Amino acid sequence: MHTDAPIAISMGDPSGIGPEIIAKAFLQNPQDMAGCVVVGDLATLRRAAAWVSGDGPRLPVAQLADWTDAANLTGSASGPVTALGMPVIDLVASKEAFAVGQINAASGLAAGRCVWWSTEAVLRGDAAALVTAPLHKASLALAGEPFAAFPGHTEMLQHLAAAHAGCALADMPVRMMLANDELRVVLVSIHLGLRRALDAVTQAQVLQTIQITHAALAAGLGRPPRIAVAGLNPHAGEGGLFGREEMDEIEPAVAAALAQHMQASGPFAPDTVFMRARTGEFDAVVAMYHDQGLIPVKYLGVEQGVNVTLGLHNGRGRPLVRTSPDHGTAFDLAGTGRANASSLVAAVRHARSLIAAA
Amino acid sequence: MHTDAPIAISMGDPSGIGPEIIAKAFLQNPQDMAGCVVVGDLATLRRAAAWVSGDGPRLPVAQLADWTDAANLTGSASGPVTALGMPVIDLVASKEAFAVGQINAASGLAAGRCVWWSTEAVLRGDAAALVTAPLHKASLALAGEPFAAFPGHTEMLQHLAAAHAGCALADMPVRMMLANDELRVVLVSIHLGLRRALDAVTQAQVLQTIQITHAALAAGLGRPPRIAVAGLNPHAGEGGLFGREEMDEIEPAVAAALAQHMQASGPFAPDTVFMRARTGEFDAVVAMYHDQGLIPVKYLGVEQGVNVTLGLHNGRGRPLVRTSPDHGTAFDLAGTGRANASSLVAAVRHARSLIAAA
Repeated sequence: MHTDAPIAISMGDPSGIGPEIIAKAFLQNPQDMAGCVVVGDLATLRRAAAWVSGDGPRLPVAQLADWTDAANLTGSASGPVTALGMPVIDLVASKEAFAVGQINAASGLAAGRCVWWSTEAVLRGDAAALVTAPLHKASLALAGEPFAAFPGHTEMLQHLAAAHAGCALADMPVRMMLANDELRVVLVSIHLGLRRALDAVTQAQVLQTIQITHAALAAGLGRPPRIAVAGLNPHAGEGGLFGREEMDEIEPAVAAALAQHMQASGPFAPDTVFMRARTGEFDAVVAMYHDQGLIPVKYLGVEQGVNVTLGLHNGRGRPLVRTSPDHGTAFDLAGTGRANASSLVAAVRHARSLIAAA
Repeated sequence: MHTDAPIAISMGDPSGIGPEIIAKAFLQNPQDMAGCVVVGDLATLRRAAAWVSGDGPRLPVAQLADWTDAANLTGSASGPVTALGMPVIDLVASKEAFAVGQINAASGLAAGRCVWWSTEAVLRGDAAALVTAPLHKASLALAGEPFAAFPGHTEMLQHLAAAHAGCALADMPVRMMLANDELRVVLVSIHLGLRRALDAVTQAQVLQTIQITHAALAAGLGRPPRIAVAGLNPHAGEGGLFGREEMDEIEPAVAAALAQHMQASGPFAPDTVFMRARTGEFDAVVAMYHDQGLIPVKYLGVEQGVNVTLGLHNGRGRPLVRTSPDHGTAFDLAGTGRANASSLVAAVRHARSLIAAA
C-alpha cells in the first residue's frame, strides 16, 4: 500500500489541451488536486498556467526534482491541501513551449516519455496512481521506438506492467471501463471496426471481461458487484431470431461466471440494460463493443466521464490504478484556455477512490 | 386533410397490457384522449377498464357502431373533450375477455384484425391517424393468413399502404423513428442481427433514410430538418483505421443528400452524436442499426418514448400517420392494472402533432 505517495499526472500531448486542463484543475479545484504531481514539460505547463489564469493572479508553478521531493512536499494523497500551486517534475525540459494544435513528432515523443516514466514510478510505488491527460495517437505514431509501437495509453501501460511483473502480455489482460456518477461500463473490445469487434465477442473474451470487472469493483464496493452482461443483437437475439451470439458465446460466459461465484446476469437487451443500470439495478454493465457502452456513458455529457484501465497490476497483488478524462486532445481548443477540466478532476477523484479501496 | 376524423387506437394483443394502458390513458388523461376511438374487443376493454379503475368510479366504456358514429360523437381530434369515457368499436366482439399473459392464436388474430381494419380506415380517411398498442409477435405468427406473414406492425402497414396506393412494396419504403422530448432517431434497419445489419448499411439505404427523415420532419418544423448521420464504427472509422463503411457508404450518402438540398451532415462519431442532438445541435439523428439509436432514446427511461413509422402514405400525397408506445406487451404486468400509460399518451400527442403538420 502506497497511499502516501503522490498521484502522477502525465501532461498528455503538449500540443493539445492536456497542459491547460491540468493547470485549470489546480486553479479551480485545489482541494481535489492536493497530492497530485504533474510529469511534463515545465515551459509548456507554465504557458498553460498563464493561459488559464487569464486576468486573475497567475497559478504558481513549482518545479520539483524527483518523487522524493514530491512525496515530502505534497504529503499524503489524502492529506492536507498544498499551497504550492501546481507541482511539476520537468521530465521533458524543453527550451521553449511546444507548438499548439499540430500533429508533430516532438510532441508525441514528449507525451510518450511522460506516460512511460510516470507508469514506471507507479509500478515501483513512488507514485500511488496515474492520471493521464490525452495523447494524440498520430503524434505518438511519429515518436519513434518504443512509443510508435503503441496505439495508445492502454497498450503502453499493459506492456510496462507485464514487464514489471515478469509475465507475458497475455497474462496481463486489461479492459477499459468508462464511468460517471450514474453508470459504469466495461468494454469487451475497444478500437476495432464493428465487423472485427463482432468477432471479438467470444465466450473467453466475455468471461475474461466479467472476471476483470468483478476483481476491479469488489474491493471498492465491499461486496461482489452486480454485473449485467449486454447482448450483442437487437433484443439480445430474441432466442436466435436476430443472431446466435447470445446463445453461442455470451450465455455460456455468464454461466461460467456464475459457476465461479460472480454475480453476473444476462445477456440483456442492449437497448434497456444501460437504463436499468443507471437506475440502480446493476453496479456495472459489460458491453460487447465500443459504441454500445460509450453511447450511454456520454449521452448526458462528457464532462463527468472517467476512463479507467482495469486489470493492470504490479505482479505482487497491487493494482496499477490508472484513470483519464473521457475526451481527446481537442486541438481546436488548445491554446484558448477555454477547455473544461471537469473530466480530469473526475478522473483524479476516481483514482483516489481506487487507491483507497486497493 | 381529415383532421376532423378521430384517431384510431388499435387494442394490441388482448393478452398483454394494451387494453389496460388504453383504459388508463382515458382515465388519467381525458384531454389527451379526446377524439380517440379504440378498435378492439369490447369484453376485454371493459375488463381492462375495471382493472385500471381500482376502487374509484369505473371508467365508462361506450360502444360505437362505426366510424360515422365515432366522428359525430367525438367531434374533432383537436376539438372538445368528450365526456363519454372510452369509445370503442367492437371489431372482435368475443363472447368473453381474452386469456391474460399467454401466447395464443386467438389473441394474435384479434390483434391483427384490429390493426388491419384500423389501418384501412386511416387510408380511406375515416380516421386521421393510427396509434397502435403493442402486438405479441409470437401470437401474431400463430394467427394464420394474412397476419402470420408479418413480423410486426410496420410490415403490415407497409403492405396495406402500398396496396391502397397501388404501388409496389419497394416504392413505399419506411423507417422507424424513435422520439422523446429530447431526441429523434431514425433507424437504417430494425430487427436484424447485428452482422446482417452491417450489410444493410449501404449508400442507397442510408440516403433513403435521410430522404424519409427529411420529408417527414420538414412540415412539422417548417424548415429543412438538421439531420446528423451517425458513423458505423468507433470514432466514425477514424479515416479508415477502424473500418471503411464511413468512406465507402455513409459519406457518399451524405454528399448525395446535400446535393439534393437536404441539411444532412456527418458521419459523426457514434458515441457523441446523440448527446449533441440532445443538446440541440441537430433535429434528428440517422442511426446505422437498432441499438445504436435505441440505447440513447431509452437511456433516460422508456416512459416518454414514442415509435413513429415514417414513409407511409395513401398514394395521394397524404401521409399515413402511425405512432405507438415504445414498449411491448409486458405479459408479466398484464392483468395487474399497474402498467404505465405514459408512452401511449405520448404516442397520441405525437400523432396529433403530425396530423396538424400534415
